[in-house]
Amino acid sequence: MFYESFKQMKKQLGQLDTWLGAAAAYADGKKFESKNFLGLRLVVDQFAFARQVQTACDTAKLAASRLAGKDAPTQPDTEETIDQLRERVRSVIAYLDGYTAKDFESAATRSITQPRWNGKTMTGADYFFEHAQPNFFFHLTTAYAILRQHGVPLGKRDYLGTLTQHAPQ
Amino acid sequence: MFYESFKQMKKQLGQLDTWLGAAAAYADGKKFESKNFLGLRLVVDQFAFARQVQTACDTAKLAASRLAGKDAPTQPDTEETIDQLRERVRSVIAYLDGYTAKDFESAATRSITQPRWNGKTMTGADYFFEHAQPNFFFHLTTAYAILRQHGVPLGKRDYLGTLTQHAPQ
Repeated sequence: MFYESFKQMKKQLGQLDTWLGAAAAYADGKKFESKNFLGLRLVVDQFAFARQVQTACDTAKLAASRLAGKDAPTQPDTEETIDQLRERVRSVIAYLDGYTAKDFESAATRSITQPRWNGKTMTGADYFFEHAQPNFFFHLTTAYAILRQHGVPLGKRDYLGTLTQHAPQ
Repeated sequence: MFYESFKQMKKQLGQLDTWLGAAAAYADGKKFESKNFLGLRLVVDQFAFARQVQTACDTAKLAASRLAGKDAPTQPDTEETIDQLRERVRSVIAYLDGYTAKDFESAATRSITQPRWNGKTMTGADYFFEHAQPNFFFHLTTAYAILRQHGVPLGKRDYLGTLTQHAPQ
């Protein structure tokens, strides 16, 4: 089920990629520089838009690597344009594409830590449910909200993407 | 693992309850009516705060009932105060407390529908990962953002709550 969750994270990152495309098109139509989005904040002491995107990316990437016991590539937070943010998002989707359900077989009980925890650990299951997944959706939704608040034409369907629905019998 | 996800939803609803308490305390300190929060919107064509809270509650409640093949109690959206919203949140936590892992044994393959889908269906797994869980976090994070944007003193620790961490060995 970790694998199912990462499949959904990949889908949500794909939606994020389309929101970035919509933001660039909106900027073109209004004739302002699309990179102006990167510094916007929903709240003055929250991360700016670019860092919301970077953090959503890193949260998904590092959750997969930590739960699978692998090393993830480090990515410097140097994006300065919407196109560069889209490349970052796509690189993480491609990275997650390299994982299979088998990679997460020992994930639930694996001992997880990260530098800021000062040696404390969490089980893989607790880390994923209590930390990684809520954080992923937090930064994803905040990025979406920043674009919406500044006029980019997006709606709930853009947030969720296409649903796997079956026709009535 | 559905059960694990609902445990986390319960935890997040408990955090939402504390945010509502912080909003009421902030209003008291600033001497304005705390019910003023209920009509605030992050974006003019998004749900107002009260409905963000109600929808987070309903998303969790209905996901559990649909995945378990049970009927959930209907709750009219009549809350007009922060205290009434807190009661709503707590009622859903109590409702979810009635579920055990066994209730979700057939959840992944259960056929799920809802009125607005015009007879279309989703498997329980697709419905949960593609629809219910992203929606839950969407409305939760949007509610949090509305409070943050209007000065309620909350931070990431209030969003995540206490983590199940273990001391260094």
